[in-house]
Amino acid sequence: MSLLVTGSIAIDDVKSPFGNAEGVYGGSAVYFSFAATLFTPVRFVGVVGEDFPNDFRTFLARRNIDLAGLEVRKGSKTFRWSGQYDQVTSDAETTAIELNVLAEAGPKIPPQFADSAFVFLAATHPALQQDLVGQLKSPRLIVADTRNLWISNERAALLKTFSMVQGAILNDAEARLLTNEHNLVLAGRRIIGWGPQFVVVKKGENGVMLVTKDHAAVLPAYPTTEVKDPTGAGDSFAGGMMGYLSTQQDFGAASLKRALAYGTITASFTIEDFSLRRIEHVTIEEVDRRLADYKAMLSLE
Amino acid sequence: MSLLVTGSIAIDDVKSPFGNAEGVYGGSAVYFSFAATLFTPVRFVGVVGEDFPNDFRTFLARRNIDLAGLEVRKGSKTFRWSGQYDQVTSDAETTAIELNVLAEAGPKIPPQFADSAFVFLAATHPALQQDLVGQLKSPRLIVADTRNLWISNERAALLKTFSMVQGAILNDAEARLLTNEHNLVLAGRRIIGWGPQFVVVKKGENGVMLVTKDHAAVLPAYPTTEVKDPTGAGDSFAGGMMGYLSTQQDFGAASLKRALAYGTITASFTIEDFSLRRIEHVTIEEVDRRLADYKAMLSLE
Repeated sequence: MSLLVTGSIAIDDVKSPFGNAEGVYGGSAVYFSFAATLFTPVRFVGVVGEDFPNDFRTFLARRNIDLAGLEVRKGSKTFRWSGQYDQVTSDAETTAIELNVLAEAGPKIPPQFADSAFVFLAATHPALQQDLVGQLKSPRLIVADTRNLWISNERAALLKTFSMVQGAILNDAEARLLTNEHNLVLAGRRIIGWGPQFVVVKKGENGVMLVTKDHAAVLPAYPTTEVKDPTGAGDSFAGGMMGYLSTQQDFGAASLKRALAYGTITASFTIEDFSLRRIEHVTIEEVDRRLADYKAMLSLE
Repeated sequence: MSLLVTGSIAIDDVKSPFGNAEGVYGGSAVYFSFAATLFTPVRFVGVVGEDFPNDFRTFLARRNIDLAGLEVRKGSKTFRWSGQYDQVTSDAETTAIELNVLAEAGPKIPPQFADSAFVFLAATHPALQQDLVGQLKSPRLIVADTRNLWISNERAALLKTFSMVQGAILNDAEARLLTNEHNLVLAGRRIIGWGPQFVVVKKGENGVMLVTKDHAAVLPAYPTTEVKDPTGAGDSFAGGMMGYLSTQQDFGAASLKRALAYGTITASFTIEDFSLRRIEHVTIEEVDRRLADYKAMLSLE
């Protein structure tokens, strides 16, 4: 069923111990879309400036991405992010950021996207997330991401966003900051108390935790020696997860775990090279082969 | 087959956010033995002072632990350790330590233990570990643990120990310190280059990694909300792992992974209460029930 993503489109400069990439394509909605289109078409909602490179649009259009929700705003500039990794498995240090068009009014969901059933709200101001939810006619599964900034500065608004969605996704540090609870199962349960039916806690190289009302599961990351650039890992994870879920009929624990596994495997490809250089060439057959390895790894027979 | 452990016997004082325990039983060989005796009898080698409480001996003797290798040294005092946890999932901060008898000559392996097939060398001076290995007649599987102290101060001796054993076990920070390699798969492979056939990297609440020459697997920790005192988690893990392995005929990746799972589950009980208060009451049936839950958690069908 139809899958919609709203999030950032970025021009990135990235440094890692394995090299540099300057002026490359990035942004949460972009990484998400390249992962999700392995499973299903994606409806894309985001805003860029009039400096948006035509090559970038062509690059997106090569995937099964409907760009009807991509607004090119006159007089504005596209979001730019620069970051570096000291250790490739650590968080990025942001060395420069130009919010540009992201600091202005948010994008609108085009009328033909309003019937979207599956929706991923990448991390942005919670009020904007709520505004986007309000433009949806009959969503079946909305999942919202967030960041430290909104947890610290817009807590009440964020809790309101969480009360409007079925799933919340955030990393371990964010889950602890939001709930003041160190144990991630308890942190997840507290978030569920605010509305979502499930919480996904991303732990980077340490895998991912799923918490539902009466269930907790942890899946490890796919162990790899091929890590060049972790940028976009979390958004690729979300794309693989939501892409798979949008092909499913139910969102019980078994479906959610399979979705987490697909997210894990999809993200494991993204980090093998800078920007989208690896994920853009990955096929669903490669994903399924690696998933089979992953299942074998988790088998205790 | 016969399983021998050498390591510390301690009197501990522990503080965690969930309470205090003073003058309680601890030590690496003790935690190991309580875990391993869920699977097999244990031959115990260690040294205490003449102040060793008779109650502690009685406590050990209630398990299937052969205490022929427990030396009570005249004129010496038993090892004491005090530690506290700020966050229950973090490492302990050592607040006081009295090495006492541990700073003296190491224990000897009694003649009737020299034919032990399975051997666990808890973390101690690498030269002492080598001395103990030299007292074994026909070991099938020796696994050695270590600590930051020996990695930093006795690196050459530690590498020699690793050249004499089949398995190495250490935590993620130790693996990185030892190899100067951040990626744990690569760190594990480097250690394998020094001799062991497999390396087990303990990641605390983030699970455990197995590295063999051509294989890497990660298993998550058992997600629990019942954590009171992480003391002894690593040694209980090793005890469950070695206890299970000593019932197996081969040490291929499948056996090793099952051993890691048993270690994971055994340790998950230890941390539910202070000292050995929880693990001393656990039955193999409880372990198997929790293992079944864990397998279900890891199933992606």
